[in-house]
Amino acid sequence: MTIDQIQTPALVLDLDALDRNLRRMADFVEQHGITLRTHGKMHKSADVARRQIEIGGAHGICCQKVSEAEAFVRAGIRDVLVSNQVRDAVKLDRLARLPALGARVGVCVDDLAGVAELAAAVARHGTELDVLVELDCGARRCGASVSEVAAIARAVEAAPGLRFRGLQAYQGAMQHVQTWPAREAAFAEVAEAVRAAKAALAAAGLPCPTVTGGGTGSYPLETASGLYTELQCGSYAFMDADYGRIDGPDGQRLDAGAWDNALFVLTQVMSTAGPGRAVCDAGLKAMSGESGLPLVQGRSGLTCEDLSDEHCRIADPDGVLSIGDKLWLVPGHCDPTVNLHDWYVGLRGGRVETLWPVTARGKLW
Amino acid sequence: MTIDQIQTPALVLDLDALDRNLRRMADFVEQHGITLRTHGKMHKSADVARRQIEIGGAHGICCQKVSEAEAFVRAGIRDVLVSNQVRDAVKLDRLARLPALGARVGVCVDDLAGVAELAAAVARHGTELDVLVELDCGARRCGASVSEVAAIARAVEAAPGLRFRGLQAYQGAMQHVQTWPAREAAFAEVAEAVRAAKAALAAAGLPCPTVTGGGTGSYPLETASGLYTELQCGSYAFMDADYGRIDGPDGQRLDAGAWDNALFVLTQVMSTAGPGRAVCDAGLKAMSGESGLPLVQGRSGLTCEDLSDEHCRIADPDGVLSIGDKLWLVPGHCDPTVNLHDWYVGLRGGRVETLWPVTARGKLW
Repeated sequence: MTIDQIQTPALVLDLDALDRNLRRMADFVEQHGITLRTHGKMHKSADVARRQIEIGGAHGICCQKVSEAEAFVRAGIRDVLVSNQVRDAVKLDRLARLPALGARVGVCVDDLAGVAELAAAVARHGTELDVLVELDCGARRCGASVSEVAAIARAVEAAPGLRFRGLQAYQGAMQHVQTWPAREAAFAEVAEAVRAAKAALAAAGLPCPTVTGGGTGSYPLETASGLYTELQCGSYAFMDADYGRIDGPDGQRLDAGAWDNALFVLTQVMSTAGPGRAVCDAGLKAMSGESGLPLVQGRSGLTCEDLSDEHCRIADPDGVLSIGDKLWLVPGHCDPTVNLHDWYVGLRGGRVETLWPVTARGKLW
Repeated sequence: MTIDQIQTPALVLDLDALDRNLRRMADFVEQHGITLRTHGKMHKSADVARRQIEIGGAHGICCQKVSEAEAFVRAGIRDVLVSNQVRDAVKLDRLARLPALGARVGVCVDDLAGVAELAAAVARHGTELDVLVELDCGARRCGASVSEVAAIARAVEAAPGLRFRGLQAYQGAMQHVQTWPAREAAFAEVAEAVRAAKAALAAAGLPCPTVTGGGTGSYPLETASGLYTELQCGSYAFMDADYGRIDGPDGQRLDAGAWDNALFVLTQVMSTAGPGRAVCDAGLKAMSGESGLPLVQGRSGLTCEDLSDEHCRIADPDGVLSIGDKLWLVPGHCDPTVNLHDWYVGLRGGRVETLWPVTARGKLW
């Protein structure tokens, strides 16, 4: 199948660019002696996860929902961390059943009651779970405070069937801070919290083999700190417009060489009736809009100026576009965009090589 | 099944509130002698469409994509307008095949080349299509200008298999203008364009049996103008936070009595580790975020202050929330929220009555 035959709008993955990104991250973690657990919530794809393990230096993945973990484990991924709390009774049972399918499964807790619920669930199902205590290191979302970490960890350690593995310390709110120096400054709070939490665990005589976290915007900081043993990057594999425009450590935009855009929404012009504009057939149901407008790849005279439910409007001041012309849009935010689609159209060498299902699309539970 | 047993996050439809909204709109169109073709792009549900036809005063529906129309026709809806241009060769064939399934099918055009493509498609398949000329009446998206309408209509009229039905004149950009007087002022441009286009058709000796358009924010204006024969409202049936906060003709918010919130994302508290906040299990993959944050229904002390990929953070200054507590969120924007889900959980009288599939979820083509 040729690219011309793809029905629009379509979620297209440039597998050559994907592989370049995966190899770059594999080189990074190898050079820096840190492990990599890529974030499956971003791509929701068992095929991408397998590729990250095969050539991308990853030893496992993380995801955010029990139903995602089920999808990944059933698709053959053998090491899955739910980097989130699981508190609902039905979800606890589903989580505790997962190791019996042959996977190493981990989960986070951020209070003592959560430990008790996990312990009861593994006891019901005769299984074991890895458990990380989530530390609030600045995102002000989930996560215990430094002063609470040791008591929660001790409760995990004491619970049969729960293996205390260390700390979950991801600071999501700093990932998109624009400049590198500002992100570096934001990381100071993270490092202070992680250092203090590790000290509290050590003082309590508790081992902390794993400190995991870091995202595409910050992972060189977690790595350089010496505090982390594992990175959880996700978006580096696909890139998007929102990550693309922030600066890396070299002061350059992240999409200016550090990472290649591998994910596109392919769209087609379906109206040129109005002067100076073309209307394409992809809108908010083909890409999420909360992180800004998509970029038009490789067409410097064209910009997306509006995204509505079913359309995107392209400013075309020179009137170069015609009905049926295809445009490659870099979506604002890859995670919720991927979740809108059932399939990736995978390209290699300029041809359609494969269709990959979005294995965990809509897995919200 | 009881409400307590619903797994979160879930898309929940209060069928009592839905029925009240449908009956209100049915009363309106009956009183005002205007017809109603409800917008199926909003709900993507054959069950909601059927209910709109049964009790809601609708004689048919519209939708935006050929694949949506296919889903509705296959589910038994017998009068479907694709209120959009169809220009791709594969989609033209799919559209032209649809009437053979026993439905009356319409579509829009906004240039002469589009007429020729539709004519060729119906000739290939031996079918007929209703055709509306789309008029750009101020949204600056698709649509011909007033000066082009008559020539396009004449071409439709001359094409075997195409039935010229009139004008598509929907002004999407004015729907969310905050105050009623400002929306009234915006409608002046719409009315002027529609009046001029009708005059141009009359001068060319072309009948214009249908003028269709209007949305939840503007439909009293289209109705009062006397220029329109048909309304295309969608969101009135479910309401959302973005429509809820605009003023109606009475100067009151639309969600303050005019329309009931029927659509909710049911979510559950899964972390209370941080002070003054609770974190729930619904984020950008359970509701779209580009139109603002969701409202917390019926809990005046609680506000959603952040929506991230997997979580929403609720400000809970008095610490009233506990793990497992359920909250009913009114999503910012119903259309792209519905498209994230496979099922509606339908409640009636406070119990789960039904599961309705989101028939056209992900139908982007």
